[in-house]
Amino acid sequence: MSLGRSATRIFALVLVCLALVAPASARDLPRPETFTLNNGLQVVVITDRRAPVVTHMVWYRVGAADEDRGRSGIAHFFEHLMFKGTRDIGPGEFSREVARNGGQLNAFTSWDYTAYYERIARDRLELVMGMEADRMRNLRFSDETFTSERDVIGEERRQRIDNNPGAVMGERMRAMLYPHHPYGTPIIGWAHEIEALDRESALAFYRTWYAPNNAILVVAGDIDAAELRPLAQRYYGRLRPTRDLPARTWVQDPPSVGPMRITHRDEKVRQPSMSRVYRAISYATDEGRQAHALDVAIEILGGSETSRLYRALVEEQRIAVSAGAGASTSGLGGGSVSVSATPVEGVSLEQLEAAVDEVIAAYLRDGPTEAELARAKSSLAAAAIYSRDSQESLANIYGSSLAQGESIDDVVNWPRDIEAVTRDEALTMARQTLVLDASVTGWLLPPEAGQ
Amino acid sequence: MSLGRSATRIFALVLVCLALVAPASARDLPRPETFTLNNGLQVVVITDRRAPVVTHMVWYRVGAADEDRGRSGIAHFFEHLMFKGTRDIGPGEFSREVARNGGQLNAFTSWDYTAYYERIARDRLELVMGMEADRMRNLRFSDETFTSERDVIGEERRQRIDNNPGAVMGERMRAMLYPHHPYGTPIIGWAHEIEALDRESALAFYRTWYAPNNAILVVAGDIDAAELRPLAQRYYGRLRPTRDLPARTWVQDPPSVGPMRITHRDEKVRQPSMSRVYRAISYATDEGRQAHALDVAIEILGGSETSRLYRALVEEQRIAVSAGAGASTSGLGGGSVSVSATPVEGVSLEQLEAAVDEVIAAYLRDGPTEAELARAKSSLAAAAIYSRDSQESLANIYGSSLAQGESIDDVVNWPRDIEAVTRDEALTMARQTLVLDASVTGWLLPPEAGQ
Repeated sequence: MSLGRSATRIFALVLVCLALVAPASARDLPRPETFTLNNGLQVVVITDRRAPVVTHMVWYRVGAADEDRGRSGIAHFFEHLMFKGTRDIGPGEFSREVARNGGQLNAFTSWDYTAYYERIARDRLELVMGMEADRMRNLRFSDETFTSERDVIGEERRQRIDNNPGAVMGERMRAMLYPHHPYGTPIIGWAHEIEALDRESALAFYRTWYAPNNAILVVAGDIDAAELRPLAQRYYGRLRPTRDLPARTWVQDPPSVGPMRITHRDEKVRQPSMSRVYRAISYATDEGRQAHALDVAIEILGGSETSRLYRALVEEQRIAVSAGAGASTSGLGGGSVSVSATPVEGVSLEQLEAAVDEVIAAYLRDGPTEAELARAKSSLAAAAIYSRDSQESLANIYGSSLAQGESIDDVVNWPRDIEAVTRDEALTMARQTLVLDASVTGWLLPPEAGQ
Repeated sequence: MSLGRSATRIFALVLVCLALVAPASARDLPRPETFTLNNGLQVVVITDRRAPVVTHMVWYRVGAADEDRGRSGIAHFFEHLMFKGTRDIGPGEFSREVARNGGQLNAFTSWDYTAYYERIARDRLELVMGMEADRMRNLRFSDETFTSERDVIGEERRQRIDNNPGAVMGERMRAMLYPHHPYGTPIIGWAHEIEALDRESALAFYRTWYAPNNAILVVAGDIDAAELRPLAQRYYGRLRPTRDLPARTWVQDPPSVGPMRITHRDEKVRQPSMSRVYRAISYATDEGRQAHALDVAIEILGGSETSRLYRALVEEQRIAVSAGAGASTSGLGGGSVSVSATPVEGVSLEQLEAAVDEVIAAYLRDGPTEAELARAKSSLAAAAIYSRDSQESLANIYGSSLAQGESIDDVVNWPRDIEAVTRDEALTMARQTLVLDASVTGWLLPPEAGQ
């Protein structure tokens, strides 16, 4: 139970997803088998015979962006509630059963999806399929359970966010970057709204969204589609779909009109730092190879210790202890790019930010060199090559990509499409994205002296 | 019709409302007669026999803050649609009839209310009562009317907001100040959402909110309650109330975590300027005399040419051509305080803002003098004295105050309560409100040289 508890507390950060959605190599990613049950459940099978184990994941096409306004946190809440039992399975028994059978489990929530994961010996697959299918439609929890778990989540928020000045500021930077779109609301929920969540709304949310026609079952490992199909049919095939599943239409932001800034001071800040987020396209919203080009462009700017930002600020100018950038290009509703840097002792954030802006300006002026382009592509390719060897990574890549509006082909061809990105494409996307007018800059500082 | 058209385009800005809600003098404001019809319509009668004219207003307890997320602009849209006719009254006929009978009309929308106003000879009162009652429940408009009026509103938005860099920036400053609360959404609506408004949603909005049990009828002028009651009963008494009128519960913002800023540059900016908004309490959300104290405190800081800001920046330091502050304390969901200043040629916004901050810091450190306190109270009192003589102002004060959660007593006693504000109360509210951490500062500038 304690394993299940802490394991379910893992957020899928968009930056992490990017690394997962976007592995790369000159070779295609392995193409999974797929089929769909009559009730709408999409099934993806990634055969991997190296060991007698399987990774079993259910991805729901629902996340924090689908919450009713004023009920933030409800999507993530299910990471907890889904372990509270059904008619057949008692509270906490799911986690205990998996652990007792040598398995591991996990769950995560993003703005776009909620996913539940088990890794277990092949001969125990039916055990987790049975339990996972059961809780897709038959979840039960008492008022007391709901209320006490709500307190747990309130505490989780205090520890993860409110005790972490960087997280507090990051939350507000997103709210500024997305003044209207639901991506501006934190996944874990605003504290005062978590406190007010009620069991009835949670149940309504569950009954609507947790359904076979809103889910993707991904099974990776020692199994193929011919073997999986009868099992999927047996356990999931009898589940009733949601009729009139709501469309996932989210309100859109007005265009940005100028650079925004926030300064957050807190006594827990030991090391000042600056960060910036820009609005960007994503694989779900782009055209052609734009998201690929953006990933390559940002990898060059700040993806590693050989990147522009790191080399200029940490190695050459020696004014930063860290500096980097990352592209979050997996969102169903769009993406973002973040840049951040931490100064060495004695360097002000003003000085550091000016230097960051210098590096970006030079990059946008001259563009990447061919050597940088090649290195960035290899670096992204390395992630893909690594992911080919990881059952869990592949399951993650296919599950999250499908839940975020991409196709199997998009994933299979990803390494090839990355490879095809030209210097001009990367530069165009860098110029389109790294626009101060569509950005929020945050300064994280200790309290002012004398206060 | 052209009169009606342009007249209906007037917004009730919160700053304007403040002046209206909050007149002041040592004497009470005149207490109106009130009664309520069986269908829930609240009626307020302010007798004024000086001339044979009446002011007839209907205030609906619905405004932009009540719109569904994604349908911004729909509340204001009714300022236009309400002139499009019913079964008995043709499109545009309402405005023509009022004009033909020597009357004037107007309409305005805030986040909290929508109001319709006619001023006409006493012997024509029944004419406007009949037409106003008719359109409370029987509005009709075709798809073509709806679509063409939507274009008119799109154009209105372009002229009022998008062509006005100060308005563009102000809109975004509000969105930053209220990241979650509906006060962060502009009354006129986001451009892309205005374009997408549909007739069916508009009708649903109308049928729900435009109802006698969600309205306040205010009649001021040459009439008393005994005379008005039978007329109110005849014209409004037969209207059907909305059953299960929705509660006006709005999502709340998380607490601010640090000062926010935005810079907006536009070639239409001739004169750079800075402005700042702070979150504040309002008459609807305060306790005791807090809103009164805040009004007094901000009057002292920046309400006139004898205020701290004006004297310091314009007269003494000669670095600003204008400088002032205003409190918006009438909102049902809370208030705000704004500060703004425009530098003289050659003074940078940075310099000017530092000087503004200096004035505020000194004010918060030392508080107002007794002379300043007395002068601010007289100044607010002057507004009240003036309003006593204006039929329209009194009707506005009672209508908006009741629509924004205040009682008749609150209004009647307002001058007395302002008079009672102490130096300590004013200073306390200034200190509670003028907190940089709960503010958004905007810089309005022409494009950068060389861009």
